[in-house]
Amino acid sequence: MYEQLGLIGCGLMGSSFALALKRAGLVKRVVGFSPSKNTTELALKMGVIDAIASSAAEAATGADLVLLAVPVAATDMTLRAIQPVIATTTLVMDVGSTKRDVVNAALQTLGNRLPCFVPAHPICGREVSGVQNALVDLYVGKKVILTPLPETAAVQLQQARQLWTALGSIVSEMSPQTHDAAYAAVSHLPHLLAFAMMNSLESQADGQQYLSLAGPGFRDFSRIAAAEPAMWRDIFLANRDELLAQSRQFQASLHALEKLIEAGDAASLQDSIRQASQARANWQHAPAASSK
Amino acid sequence: MYEQLGLIGCGLMGSSFALALKRAGLVKRVVGFSPSKNTTELALKMGVIDAIASSAAEAATGADLVLLAVPVAATDMTLRAIQPVIATTTLVMDVGSTKRDVVNAALQTLGNRLPCFVPAHPICGREVSGVQNALVDLYVGKKVILTPLPETAAVQLQQARQLWTALGSIVSEMSPQTHDAAYAAVSHLPHLLAFAMMNSLESQADGQQYLSLAGPGFRDFSRIAAAEPAMWRDIFLANRDELLAQSRQFQASLHALEKLIEAGDAASLQDSIRQASQARANWQHAPAASSK
Repeated sequence: MYEQLGLIGCGLMGSSFALALKRAGLVKRVVGFSPSKNTTELALKMGVIDAIASSAAEAATGADLVLLAVPVAATDMTLRAIQPVIATTTLVMDVGSTKRDVVNAALQTLGNRLPCFVPAHPICGREVSGVQNALVDLYVGKKVILTPLPETAAVQLQQARQLWTALGSIVSEMSPQTHDAAYAAVSHLPHLLAFAMMNSLESQADGQQYLSLAGPGFRDFSRIAAAEPAMWRDIFLANRDELLAQSRQFQASLHALEKLIEAGDAASLQDSIRQASQARANWQHAPAASSK
Repeated sequence: MYEQLGLIGCGLMGSSFALALKRAGLVKRVVGFSPSKNTTELALKMGVIDAIASSAAEAATGADLVLLAVPVAATDMTLRAIQPVIATTTLVMDVGSTKRDVVNAALQTLGNRLPCFVPAHPICGREVSGVQNALVDLYVGKKVILTPLPETAAVQLQQARQLWTALGSIVSEMSPQTHDAAYAAVSHLPHLLAFAMMNSLESQADGQQYLSLAGPGFRDFSRIAAAEPAMWRDIFLANRDELLAQSRQFQASLHALEKLIEAGDAASLQDSIRQASQARANWQHAPAASSK
């Protein structure tokens, strides 16, 4: 049971975390900060937070648990602001989708409070954002990746594992480097491709007509294209090198398929599609994918 | 009420059509043909068909309704086989995902029975195929595009409209050219991209590890990559020019995003992502996308 959650950022991720923590009976009091007054007032009204702080540092003051749920580009500034008020026993986590930049920000800002920080990335989200879309079940059955630093304290790391597990998440650990390479491939690249496809349609004279004819396959493929622009801007820039490397790999595979289509090489085309189809069918049945 | 459906091809699409027609009380008897004995025997056991034909021509003989639910590459051969047994009053349809090639095949094979033929494309499918995955509700709430020829008889066209509407589908009409251009953009291209992404992951040493970390966004984006290889081989080859044109358009949009990421141009990057995000968010609420 935590005495006080200092919630910095009362958007979808942060508010869902506060709701889940309250339902699990793991926190007595949530003090929230957001740059937008409308957001904190709505969070208060919805019972997501119990008190409004006027700054990140105020939200973290006296908290034994601090969650940063801010755009990744704001991590540096936020850690710098709360560093003076963190106690040695406080557990500090973030929920950012990239981890090397977050770890670098922590190294540069947290000083003697670096052991308190456990970088975290819950693998979930929605195409809608904001406190008004918070879900108490958002983290249930979802993967949460922790990317501890060598300096991370064993106590805080253990607390982080227990906390996410208590919320129903499936916790695993890896290095920030491994995390960023993996999610460039299976999350950041798909978002980039979905955005590019929508922009391509928008750029065509008949694009709106084409869109009106799209069916369920398009619906699912393009769902992630509705994601929040500012968040994905930050992710793309923070993980630029890994993302561009994945995009190059992808384009090589795309060009290989295009060449088979151009050449009318039916047998090799079928082989290549079968490889892709089997890889996807196998993934569906992988234990790691069993969560919704 | 039709006396006899000649069902040529007892896979997912054909079997689901027969089941839906039977439930709606629109057919007395279904005679099915498939090159695979296992398939027709299972279709008979499941009550999808009432009798097994030993050839496409036998299934069509005496039928007042014929559905071709065969790979698009087999359309020409199948139409040629059934032409001699079609009556002037028979309604003949296909369910192919490309339409210019189907129309060309009809022009070359059907002769004086060309007026019987109403090319159709139901916008639905599953990532699993075969009679064992047939769904009586597959066509409910789904778009069905009819691409009649100038030679198509008004009677048969009207029958086709009424039939699909009775099954709960949303029927519209357009030219084969418009159809193929539109579905290159909103169906064939997304499939090509999903296959290429899976192949790109498979080609990487750490691909399996990356896949094990993928979450719900990846799940939905890649769902269509599990589609049937032979079917998509045929679609890609049949609609090659439109598909390659869409792929080029897509790559231009992808390169534009890549350049903004490389340049670290946060403001323009956010604008470009916002354009994509808004286009997708608007699509979700379009009436044309209200069907599941």
